[in-house]
Amino acid sequence: MAYITIDSLRKTTNELLETWGVPRCQAEIITDTIVYAHTHEKHTHGITRMPIYKKKIEEGNMSAETTLERKVDLPSLTVLRCNNGFGQVAACQGMKICIEKARSTGMAAVFISDSNNFGVAGYFGEMAAREGMVGIVITASGPAIAPMGGEKAIFGTNPVCFAFPASEENIILDMAITEAARGKIRLAEKNGEKIPTNWAVDKEGNPTDDPAKALEGTMLAIGGVKGFGLAMSFDILAGLMSGSAFGGNIKTLAASDGPSRHGHMLVAIDLRQMMSPEEYNRKISELISNVKLCGKPGAIMMPGERSAAKARKNRETVLLDDRQIRNYNQLAADCLISNQLVSVKAGKTQHGT
Amino acid sequence: MAYITIDSLRKTTNELLETWGVPRCQAEIITDTIVYAHTHEKHTHGITRMPIYKKKIEEGNMSAETTLERKVDLPSLTVLRCNNGFGQVAACQGMKICIEKARSTGMAAVFISDSNNFGVAGYFGEMAAREGMVGIVITASGPAIAPMGGEKAIFGTNPVCFAFPASEENIILDMAITEAARGKIRLAEKNGEKIPTNWAVDKEGNPTDDPAKALEGTMLAIGGVKGFGLAMSFDILAGLMSGSAFGGNIKTLAASDGPSRHGHMLVAIDLRQMMSPEEYNRKISELISNVKLCGKPGAIMMPGERSAAKARKNRETVLLDDRQIRNYNQLAADCLISNQLVSVKAGKTQHGT
Repeated sequence: MAYITIDSLRKTTNELLETWGVPRCQAEIITDTIVYAHTHEKHTHGITRMPIYKKKIEEGNMSAETTLERKVDLPSLTVLRCNNGFGQVAACQGMKICIEKARSTGMAAVFISDSNNFGVAGYFGEMAAREGMVGIVITASGPAIAPMGGEKAIFGTNPVCFAFPASEENIILDMAITEAARGKIRLAEKNGEKIPTNWAVDKEGNPTDDPAKALEGTMLAIGGVKGFGLAMSFDILAGLMSGSAFGGNIKTLAASDGPSRHGHMLVAIDLRQMMSPEEYNRKISELISNVKLCGKPGAIMMPGERSAAKARKNRETVLLDDRQIRNYNQLAADCLISNQLVSVKAGKTQHGT
Repeated sequence: MAYITIDSLRKTTNELLETWGVPRCQAEIITDTIVYAHTHEKHTHGITRMPIYKKKIEEGNMSAETTLERKVDLPSLTVLRCNNGFGQVAACQGMKICIEKARSTGMAAVFISDSNNFGVAGYFGEMAAREGMVGIVITASGPAIAPMGGEKAIFGTNPVCFAFPASEENIILDMAITEAARGKIRLAEKNGEKIPTNWAVDKEGNPTDDPAKALEGTMLAIGGVKGFGLAMSFDILAGLMSGSAFGGNIKTLAASDGPSRHGHMLVAIDLRQMMSPEEYNRKISELISNVKLCGKPGAIMMPGERSAAKARKNRETVLLDDRQIRNYNQLAADCLISNQLVSVKAGKTQHGT
C-alpha cells in the first residue's frame, strides 16, 4: 500500500484519456469522477476501470468523444441520446440540464440512452446538492439479479442516489439494489463461512447459504420481490423510457461484444422555491439530529457520512494497493504518456513504486 | 366468511362518511379507495380504518372536509397544504394536478403537507397509468422502523408506488419499505417459529430471531442501511419538503393526541411525449415477457399482477370475514344510516349477517 498524490492521479488519468482521443474538457469530467471514487474510498469505481475503457474504445465498442443529441426537449423533461460515449460526461451534462430547468419549473428530469457505466452515482447527486437542490440519480446496468422464483439474471445492480443538501454534510444515499456485494460473498468463501440465504440463489434459482454455489448463481435484490420491483422500475425509467436497452439487453461494463447501452435518469428538485434556505437548513439539521438520537452516541451514521469523512482525509493523497499502482503506471508507460502516479512515503515523494 | 356486494360496500361507506360530515364528492373518492383495497384484497387498508376516521373526526384530530391550499405553484412543482383532512382526497387531487402539469412540461410533482394516511398507494399510481403516464407515489408515515445501530423507531413504513402502464395489465409496484409486515411476525409467534434476523430488532436494538422479542422491538427496513436510507429519503421528500412533520414527528394513523401530519409526494411523467404509445407498448410487453422467461412458466409474477387478478375476480362481490362484516354493520347501525353490507350466499342475497 502507498499514498498517491491526488495531483498525480488527476494528471495521469487526464493524459491517458486524452491519448485515447477523449477531448480535454470531457477527460477532466471523467477524471474528476475517478478522483471522487478514490477519495471517497470506492476504489472499485476508480482507475481499475481505465483499461476497460481503453479496450472498449480500441475495439470500437465505445466512443472516445461523447456527443449528446436532444431527442425530447420539454420544460421539465429532456431525453438525450448519447453516442455510446462516457456515462460520466453524459450524466454530468444531464444533471446540468436538470439544474437549469428546475430553476424555472421547480423540478426537471433528464433521461439518457445509449450510454456507458458512469462510475459513482453520488457524484452527480452531489452536483444538485451543491446548488441547493435535491438530486436523484438512477441507472440501468447489465444483468446481475434474478427475479424471485427465477434463476436467470435480468436487471442490473441498478444503483440509485438520493442527494440532499445539508448545512454541515450533504446527505448522499448511493446504493446498489443488491442485498450484498459479490465481493462479500467471495470473502465468505475465502473464510469458509456461510452466507445469509437472502444474498443470492444458486444456478438452479434456489436460495443458498453456500458462497461457492452463490458465486455460480445470481445475486438477489434487497427485500426479495421488493428490491426486484425497484430494480425493474429503474430498468424501465432509465433503460426503456430513455430509449436505451432494457429488460436484460443492457451489457455489463466489461462486455466486448458491442455497445453497453446503459441508460440513466437524473432529477433535480429546486428546494429554494419550496422554502427559505434557513428553514430548510434548520429542518434538515433537526432530522439528522433526531436520527442520531435513535441509538447510542456515534452508533448511527447518516448516508454518505463515512464517505465524506474519508474524502476530507484524502484531499491531498489516497492510499492505493501496490498492485493497482503498478498496473496503472504500466498502463501509463504502455501508452507513452509523461505522467505517472506519484507516491508519498514518510514525507518524501517518489515516482512510481 | 361471506361474500359482500361491492354495491353495498360502496353505499354503506359513502353514507357513513357523509354522516360524519364528509362532502359527497369527497366521500366518493375515499369510498373508491376503500373498495379498491378490498377488491385487491389489501383488506388491512379497507373498512377497518373507518372507525378510526370516525374517532379522529369526533376528537377534533381530523377534518371531515378536506381543503387544499396551494403554497407553491410552479410549472412542474406544486406544494399543497392539506387542512388535516383525508389523505385519499388530497392525494387524488395531487395526482390530478401532476397529470395536468405533466401534459405541458413532461413531468410534474406535487408535495402535500398536513395530511393523513391515504390508504393504498397503488390507487394513485394507477390514476397516472390510466392516462398513459408513469406514476410515482411516496408517503411519509408515523415511526415504525429504527436505523441500523439504533433501537428507537423514527421513520414510517413509508410505502412507495411505481406505476407503469402496460397494454395487458399495468405494472403496479406498491410496497412498504419494511422487510416484513408485523402480521408475519405475529404469525411466526403463534406457530412457535423463529424469524430471520433481518426482520426486526429487540427493544435494545439487537437483531433477533425471536418473534416475541421482535414484537416488543422495532421493524427493520429492506436491506438494512439501504432500506433505512430509502425510508429517510422518503421522509425528507414527502415530509420535510412538503412542509409537514418529519424526522420522527409524524403520528401514526390511530394516534389520538393531535393531527397525524402525514406528507405525500406524487409524480407523473408523460410517456406519450417520450415515444409513441405503440413503441412503448411493444417495449413494455417485451420487458414483461423477458422477466417471465427468467424462471419456469408461471413461476414469476409481475408487481401488481396478483392483485389485479384478484380485483378482476372481485368485481361484483368480495369475501370478508364475519367479524369484520358484523363490526361494520354495527357501526352503520350506531350511526343510524340506511345502508348495510349485503352478503350473497349460494346465489341468494341477504341483508347483514
